[in-house]
Amino acid sequence: FKTAVKAGKVRKPTSIISTICDDRGDELTYNGVPISEVCKEEYVLGDVIGLLWFKRKLPSYASRFIEMCLKLVADHGPCVSGAHNTIVAARAGKDLVSSLVSGLLTIGPRFGGAIDDSARVFKDAIDRNLTPEQLVEGMKSKGKRIPGIGHLIKSADDIDKRVVILKQYAKTHFSSSKYLEYALEVEKYTLQKANNLILNVDGCIGVLFLDLLHSCDLFTKEEIKEIIDVGYLNGFFVVGRSIGLIGHALDQKRMRQPLYRHPYDDVLYASD
Amino acid sequence: FKTAVKAGKVRKPTSIISTICDDRGDELTYNGVPISEVCKEEYVLGDVIGLLWFKRKLPSYASRFIEMCLKLVADHGPCVSGAHNTIVAARAGKDLVSSLVSGLLTIGPRFGGAIDDSARVFKDAIDRNLTPEQLVEGMKSKGKRIPGIGHLIKSADDIDKRVVILKQYAKTHFSSSKYLEYALEVEKYTLQKANNLILNVDGCIGVLFLDLLHSCDLFTKEEIKEIIDVGYLNGFFVVGRSIGLIGHALDQKRMRQPLYRHPYDDVLYASD
Amino acid sequence: FKTAVKAGKVRKPTSIISTICDDRGDELTYNGVPISEVCKEEYVLGDVIGLLWFKRKLPSYASRFIEMCLKLVADHGPCVSGAHNTIVAARAGKDLVSSLVSGLLTIGPRFGGAIDDSARVFKDAIDRNLTPEQLVEGMKSKGKRIPGIGHLIKSADDIDKRVVILKQYAKTHFSSSKYLEYALEVEKYTLQKANNLILNVDGCIGVLFLDLLHSCDLFTKEEIKEIIDVGYLNGFFVVGRSIGLIGHALDQKRMRQPLYRHPYDDVLYASD
Amino acid sequence: FKTAVKAGKVRKPTSIISTICDDRGDELTYNGVPISEVCKEEYVLGDVIGLLWFKRKLPSYASRFIEMCLKLVADHGPCVSGAHNTIVAARAGKDLVSSLVSGLLTIGPRFGGAIDDSARVFKDAIDRNLTPEQLVEGMKSKGKRIPGIGHLIKSADDIDKRVVILKQYAKTHFSSSKYLEYALEVEKYTLQKANNLILNVDGCIGVLFLDLLHSCDLFTKEEIKEIIDVGYLNGFFVVGRSIGLIGHALDQKRMRQPLYRHPYDDVLYASD
Ligand SMILES: CC(C)(COP(=O)(O)OP(=O)(O)OC[C@H]1O[C@@H](n2cnc3c(N)ncnc32)[C@H](O)[C@@H]1OP(=O)(O)O)[C@@H](O)C(=O)NCCC(=O)NCCS
Ligand SMILES: CC(C)(COP(=O)(O)OP(=O)(O)OC[C@H]1O[C@@H](n2cnc3c(N)ncnc32)[C@H](O)[C@@H]1OP(=O)(O)O)[C@@H](O)C(=O)NCCC(=O)NCCS
Ligand SMILES: CC(C)(COP(=O)(O)OP(=O)(O)OC[C@H]1O[C@@H](n2cnc3c(N)ncnc32)[C@H](O)[C@@H]1OP(=O)(O)O)[C@@H](O)C(=O)NCCC(=O)NCCS
Ligand SMILES: CC(C)(COP(=O)(O)OP(=O)(O)OC[C@H]1O[C@@H](n2cnc3c(N)ncnc32)[C@H](O)[C@@H]1OP(=O)(O)O)[C@@H](O)C(=O)NCCC(=O)NCCS
Repeated sequence: FKTAVKAGKVRKPTSIISTICDDRGDELTYNGVPISEVCKEEYVLGDVIGLLWFKRKLPSYASRFIEMCLKLVADHGPCVSGAHNTIVAARAGKDLVSSLVSGLLTIGPRFGGAIDDSARVFKDAIDRNLTPEQLVEGMKSKGKRIPGIGHLIKSADDIDKRVVILKQYAKTHFSSSKYLEYALEVEKYTLQKANNLILNVDGCIGVLFLDLLHSCDLFTKEEIKEIIDVGYLNGFFVVGRSIGLIGHALDQKRMRQPLYRHPYDDVLYASD
Repeated sequence: FKTAVKAGKVRKPTSIISTICDDRGDELTYNGVPISEVCKEEYVLGDVIGLLWFKRKLPSYASRFIEMCLKLVADHGPCVSGAHNTIVAARAGKDLVSSLVSGLLTIGPRFGGAIDDSARVFKDAIDRNLTPEQLVEGMKSKGKRIPGIGHLIKSADDIDKRVVILKQYAKTHFSSSKYLEYALEVEKYTLQKANNLILNVDGCIGVLFLDLLHSCDLFTKEEIKEIIDVGYLNGFFVVGRSIGLIGHALDQKRMRQPLYRHPYDDVLYASD
Repeated sequence: FKTAVKAGKVRKPTSIISTICDDRGDELTYNGVPISEVCKEEYVLGDVIGLLWFKRKLPSYASRFIEMCLKLVADHGPCVSGAHNTIVAARAGKDLVSSLVSGLLTIGPRFGGAIDDSARVFKDAIDRNLTPEQLVEGMKSKGKRIPGIGHLIKSADDIDKRVVILKQYAKTHFSSSKYLEYALEVEKYTLQKANNLILNVDGCIGVLFLDLLHSCDLFTKEEIKEIIDVGYLNGFFVVGRSIGLIGHALDQKRMRQPLYRHPYDDVLYASD
Repeated sequence: FKTAVKAGKVRKPTSIISTICDDRGDELTYNGVPISEVCKEEYVLGDVIGLLWFKRKLPSYASRFIEMCLKLVADHGPCVSGAHNTIVAARAGKDLVSSLVSGLLTIGPRFGGAIDDSARVFKDAIDRNLTPEQLVEGMKSKGKRIPGIGHLIKSADDIDKRVVILKQYAKTHFSSSKYLEYALEVEKYTLQKANNLILNVDGCIGVLFLDLLHSCDLFTKEEIKEIIDVGYLNGFFVVGRSIGLIGHALDQKRMRQPLYRHPYDDVLYASD
């Protein structure tokens, strides 16, 4: 029997199981919806993400919310890690895909990858009925920062327009904003500590997506947990920012920029 | 003087020139348009691509055409190179960005990368006043295939719905379809050779974008030439397909698929 | 003062600190050793890794051990994740670097990336004076597998030659093999559970490197801890296997292999 | 019959053909040589490259030449494109493989990728019996630079030690240096134009490998042509520099360097 299982194990990994798209029939389908339907004008790209990632037709306000997130994160200038590496690769004469990818590979915990983490932290805090104080001080005692809180440049006095836009959209279209409200309580608490400990754009997308998942009546508790555990939400940043990164690569190619070389005098050769 | 130039050359590469996005002021701008404007609902993601790649506000029918192209190419099943490599990487337990990128790196001349090439070939043929016969036989005499023509599975009898959708959109919204009509003449000619030598989806996007650029009155001849030379159009495939690739990565992670190993018996060890 | 720190923080990230190589003087140096010295025949590539990663001239038996590890992991056939993705990318017509990278991105917890983890687990077990039984049962109670133990195909009856070679080398050249001996005690224990729960090649490299670091008298306890924490050892696999991956890419290109497409009938379209 | 071919074509791409390594038997073999043989001390890593890329046991002086090339190109400081992007990715908190790959993707025509091109150009010139003058002026008339000639910093007065080392090795060990001598004639000619138009390290490796392939009596003319056409030689740079890139990633991680952000004031926002 054991060997039979083994044999099965050897065979099973060679088969692929796939659920999101079917290209076999007369017409391509995305989670069962034929492509001719998907291409109708009332479908936005957010709907395609709904079908291919979340495996269902999202309500229009949800698809439009995803589309808004993509637009908001599409670019943030040439100085951030991702754009910078794409620019350096493009100036080394590399093709579009290589240049894009060199930049994408900087997306992670410190750049663009805090959406899932902040959703995890705020969901967990609410599940465990923590007060804002308990959350903040609890994290502090573990020496951890709260993902989705804090900004290098923006502050309570110099607010980030992108967060205002997101909050405004949710206010108008979402039936509940429990997670956002909780995060804003947390922000109130952290702002007492420092003026720049605001709910940032990653954090805001994270909690608003929690609100969306919980209030749209399409996902079970287990499905929401799985989405947050697996980490779907950073995907919005990745797709959106791809547009900006490709823009930077094309920009450099169009201007025929030469090979980048970092200046000697900006480097400390520390073994000296 | 020579040394002055040299000095200049050493200094210049350390500066970066960038034109598409400005993150310095109060509010982020995409090619001069503030993000609060970009986030209004009448802007689709196609408009953001217009601003960040083509550096202008495209007319609505053009932005919606770009959005349609993204939707059309968003996925094509788990069997193609890109999805396959993303699936293998995800099953090796790699993070979302690494899995996506492993798949993106297969996009090129044989998979997803024929849009720019077909635009180049058809533009050149029209610029040089070639008849369809001259184009086809000229390429043949050089031993080259026409990019954008031919399909492994689809044929004149089993048409590709995606091409029908694209043609329909152009008919309704574009003021000129000179390049499409020429490509359809070429298709007529190649269909006499074989039933599957149809204008494929890459070719159709390529010529329709030529029609769009020429008929929307926003680009000079030189700008169009530059867009085609630099190779902007494959970017549509890359952004669109990123959605599908991420979908495949999440799909495998959700199903906790084990490490993929290609079966021994599907490999010919040719040094035997 | 706080703001001064802030200012400093803003400035500091733009400077780069680097310690491994100096390209400014008359002659390139690797950790202070001039390249003309490095190129002498008595230096093997293992010595270069010693200088550039571990920042010291390793004794000859250590450099040769590293070189042996690179040779041992250089390739393991076309069926494993890394080689497979490189082959698929090469067959999509992609350049050498893109093909290599598509494969490299599968290296991780389930493929090639268990060396650091097994060093961590065995170091921790010895630091905490765990008996083999305590280690194995402790991991089991946490539902975790011991990295570096177990093999899909090899077993106590069908031993892995690569492990024999490694052990033989250590026996001949290392002054201590405390970590290896401990791991072999653990193997004795796990072999009672199943015949295939052997110390595998990743695990063997991991513990032997612990022995090397501890017995060569060149590293402090803190430095060893840092090497294991940061995760230097998977780097051996990455460099070594790059040779095999490039070999596979060149092999496919030489044979002009066409675009790979996974067969429909090997896929379960599970939404059916 | 046609349909039979078609059927064949559909089936064939699903099978993989592979020739460099066999992992099926009792013992892993590299091009037929068992791994226990490969691990003997007289085999250097250059021999493994011989087996896995060139599919034969190279003579010792050739394997040691490859090993020397790897050592020479292993690193060139933190300022070049590859190291820079790896450093930026590592400082964004990315894992070792992602950081390495972000840097590798800058290797190409302007950084590290001139070895194959210079072998192509010099081989072609000798095949066509061009004088150095004809080669240089012919390229000039086509507006092309000679790959492997020229250096930003080094010159006839400030020679590159790495080139001296390579030439010295070839003089001692190679039975013919026809291609090197030709390249040095070309250098004589270009040095009349400018003092920095020296044979650079990429060019020197390129022509010396031509000499090696032609004089070691192991390769037919057709095989040499194929090696140069397919482009094997940049692989030396890729493998060698991987060591340096990994070194830079580990260096940054060890020093816990924060997120890199390019300074605003080093960027010209040109749409201003
Ligand atoms: C964005 C960020 C890097 C800005 O940091 P900064 O302004 O340089 O903050 P500093 O490092 O100077 O810290 C100042 C104080 O605020 C605290 N702090 C900063 N971010 C915090 C957070 N997210 N949660 C709790 N406390 C935080 C620090 O611990 C420090 O407290 P102390 O003075 O008592 O030691 C930081 O807030 C952060 O890491 N946020 C979490 C990650 C995140 O959301 N990133 C978004 C981009 S993906
Ligand atoms: C898509 C494609 C691979 C399908 O090929 P296929 O059906 O297997 O075609 P075959 O290789 O069997 O060729 C059959 C005949 O059609 C010809 N043919 C195929 N594609 C052709 C093209 N694009 N232009 C001209 N002739 C073509 C072949 O030369 C061959 O002619 P012959 O019998 O006189 O020698 C092929 O048409 C092609 O390479 N197209 C161009 C690239 C492209 O647009 N790809 C889209 C995906 S990115
Ligand atoms: C290599 C490996 C995948 C082979 O697994 P396998 O032979 O398919 O093992 P199975 O999954 O059938 O497990 C059989 C039993 O052995 C146990 N087992 C397998 N590997 C184990 C390990 N590393 N430590 C402890 N127990 C292990 C399983 O828990 C199972 O026990 P059970 O029957 O009581 O539930 C597995 O041993 C493993 O994951 N090892 C650790 C990771 C590693 O070192 N990988 C090396 C490649 S990078
Ligand atoms: C390495 C390199 C970038 C240095 O360039 P540089 O010193 O900045 O040279 P400049 O661009 O100032 O050119 C100065 C003159 O030398 C000529 N020149 C430079 N490199 C040349 C070459 N490789 N072949 C022929 N002429 C060359 C230029 O055409 C120019 O001539 P002009 O004054 O008559 O117009 C350049 O020599 C080059 O591109 N070499 C080929 C690629 C190569 O081998 N790269 C190695 C790294 S991978």
